[in-house]
Amino acid sequence: MGSTHTMLHWGRMINDGVPYADLAEAAALDLEPEPWYRFWTGKADVYEAYGEEAERRGRLVSAGEWYWQASLSCQYAQFMLVESPALREAGQRRKADLYLRAAPYLVPAAERFEVDVDGVRIPGYVRIPPGAAPETGWPCVLLVGGLESTKEESYLFEQLCLRRGLATLTFDGPGQGEVFFELKIVKPYERYASAVVDWALANAPVDAGRLGVLGRSLGGYYAVRIAACEPRLRACVSWGGFFDMSESNAMPTPVLKGFLYAADIEDEDEGHAYLRATLDLGDVAEELSIPTLVVHGGRDVIFSEHQFELLKTRLTNAQAEFVLEPEGDHCCHNMGHVVRPRMADWLAGQLTAA
Amino acid sequence: MGSTHTMLHWGRMINDGVPYADLAEAAALDLEPEPWYRFWTGKADVYEAYGEEAERRGRLVSAGEWYWQASLSCQYAQFMLVESPALREAGQRRKADLYLRAAPYLVPAAERFEVDVDGVRIPGYVRIPPGAAPETGWPCVLLVGGLESTKEESYLFEQLCLRRGLATLTFDGPGQGEVFFELKIVKPYERYASAVVDWALANAPVDAGRLGVLGRSLGGYYAVRIAACEPRLRACVSWGGFFDMSESNAMPTPVLKGFLYAADIEDEDEGHAYLRATLDLGDVAEELSIPTLVVHGGRDVIFSEHQFELLKTRLTNAQAEFVLEPEGDHCCHNMGHVVRPRMADWLAGQLTAA
Repeated sequence: MGSTHTMLHWGRMINDGVPYADLAEAAALDLEPEPWYRFWTGKADVYEAYGEEAERRGRLVSAGEWYWQASLSCQYAQFMLVESPALREAGQRRKADLYLRAAPYLVPAAERFEVDVDGVRIPGYVRIPPGAAPETGWPCVLLVGGLESTKEESYLFEQLCLRRGLATLTFDGPGQGEVFFELKIVKPYERYASAVVDWALANAPVDAGRLGVLGRSLGGYYAVRIAACEPRLRACVSWGGFFDMSESNAMPTPVLKGFLYAADIEDEDEGHAYLRATLDLGDVAEELSIPTLVVHGGRDVIFSEHQFELLKTRLTNAQAEFVLEPEGDHCCHNMGHVVRPRMADWLAGQLTAA
Repeated sequence: MGSTHTMLHWGRMINDGVPYADLAEAAALDLEPEPWYRFWTGKADVYEAYGEEAERRGRLVSAGEWYWQASLSCQYAQFMLVESPALREAGQRRKADLYLRAAPYLVPAAERFEVDVDGVRIPGYVRIPPGAAPETGWPCVLLVGGLESTKEESYLFEQLCLRRGLATLTFDGPGQGEVFFELKIVKPYERYASAVVDWALANAPVDAGRLGVLGRSLGGYYAVRIAACEPRLRACVSWGGFFDMSESNAMPTPVLKGFLYAADIEDEDEGHAYLRATLDLGDVAEELSIPTLVVHGGRDVIFSEHQFELLKTRLTNAQAEFVLEPEGDHCCHNMGHVVRPRMADWLAGQLTAA
């Protein structure tokens, strides 16, 4: 899987909430997959113990934050260990368990839900801004993870949304998080997103007329697909996504291996063929007609600028804004402190207006 | 003033809210004072422009955060430039102006106030947790800055307090921030803190029976002094402070120069004598009788472990807990993500209990 330096995605990790002190400690080590996993799950042990102590002492705000921090450590312990599936599964499951313990103490709390789609259990979380709900319910954003990001990873982005008056919905879809163990990457991801929207409209104080979607990386592809197929959405953000897999053989090896893992395919040729047939907006691109923001980094080495150009030329019916940040890396993680609040602002502008 | 690497206090800067991307950019440069100042005020220009754009577009949460970010960039532009007083003053004044623009948009908002003490105008900010106030008013923490930290620097620590149900009060005292231009370091710092408490009790929805103080670095010295002299306080945190200046000649040169600057003394010998006479808890230590938390880093190269030991042996009447973090640097900034929420928890535990 290459040197662990490919795992030191500092922009992503810092902006997702990994403490700089931990990243600095990891960077000083020359780690292989197992020690990398042990290092980060060791951090999870520490934060979990802090969480338990805080919970015992009634320091519940801290309990929530420590369990979340422990969960996030497990996220990055396993996120690229596709060649060590036992570690990956253990880390994934522990991450989900720790976040579930954090959920009631987060401010505002996260409420777990599950929806059934053809016998597959889709788990998710909803978070509602503090204060009295607007008469028609809260505007709400569906946050969609990518290749190895899950419903537990977007906590800090949720905070940006919640501070701006947007409720948040997160879930694991096919190939992601808890669902990976039941279902791999499939074409109609949008069906699972729609089931989550159904759940939210029936069970949460959200406004059916003010729903949006944001997806990151592979989730940026899914977000467009969902917004094209799901008529109840009013705004879409594709953050570091792509149009199709026509360039799958140009992806860095660890990323390609991640795709093959999430699709459960060993053979590379078979994998390329499957990804090209499965991840392609060609069949739905023209259906996208709502306000859409596409954000892409000019230095993205995972999904090329050509993919950004494809989105630009093929989303012909969307009211779309296309933002290319020349200095941005994949998802502009290296300038996350700039692009993340902007995307939250854009969503709030689309969804909270009267 | 030595290499600018002495200015790269990553633990402090990251935990105070400097974006890692900016710190990484600064670390890659070999900067002298003027380019250092230009680098960070250049960042302030960028964030200020973001703030203005956000404000114009009605994105007020972001406007507040960008103005704060710009203000923080000015803080670190000038914080150690004591040998370039014109830059230091320009940066200091711009920092204060930018924070004033951020104040109404922060969540919750910061309200500026001024109190007069013997003709010296003491400026400060109060922030009140969201939601309905408790019947007796909010418990409240007075946050005290250090040698070059000011009322604008504690925003993220305030967030920790506010999330835990504590209102916050910040101010510039003698030798600090805006007040430096009128008044340098003096012995009875507590008089200025008391004037701020007077203001708060008369003007803000805070509970006179649930007030605390926390100070950092030199502010950790001031906090003890204030808590010893001001009978209305119920809890005290000394974070990386000291007992006296008996070891002033062992301090790193840039820190000593900072002290001489804040005392407005050029001659080193005279400076040592003044600091030893002026910054000494000997006259008040036994008066401290409230619950007190002392946090010190075992690797603090600014204030030694001997100072921690002096606090331990001389605060004989306080209900004190003494925490020495063996791996912690000055103020344990290198483990700020661990010690900061703990101090906020401790304060909440002391002040929010029924």
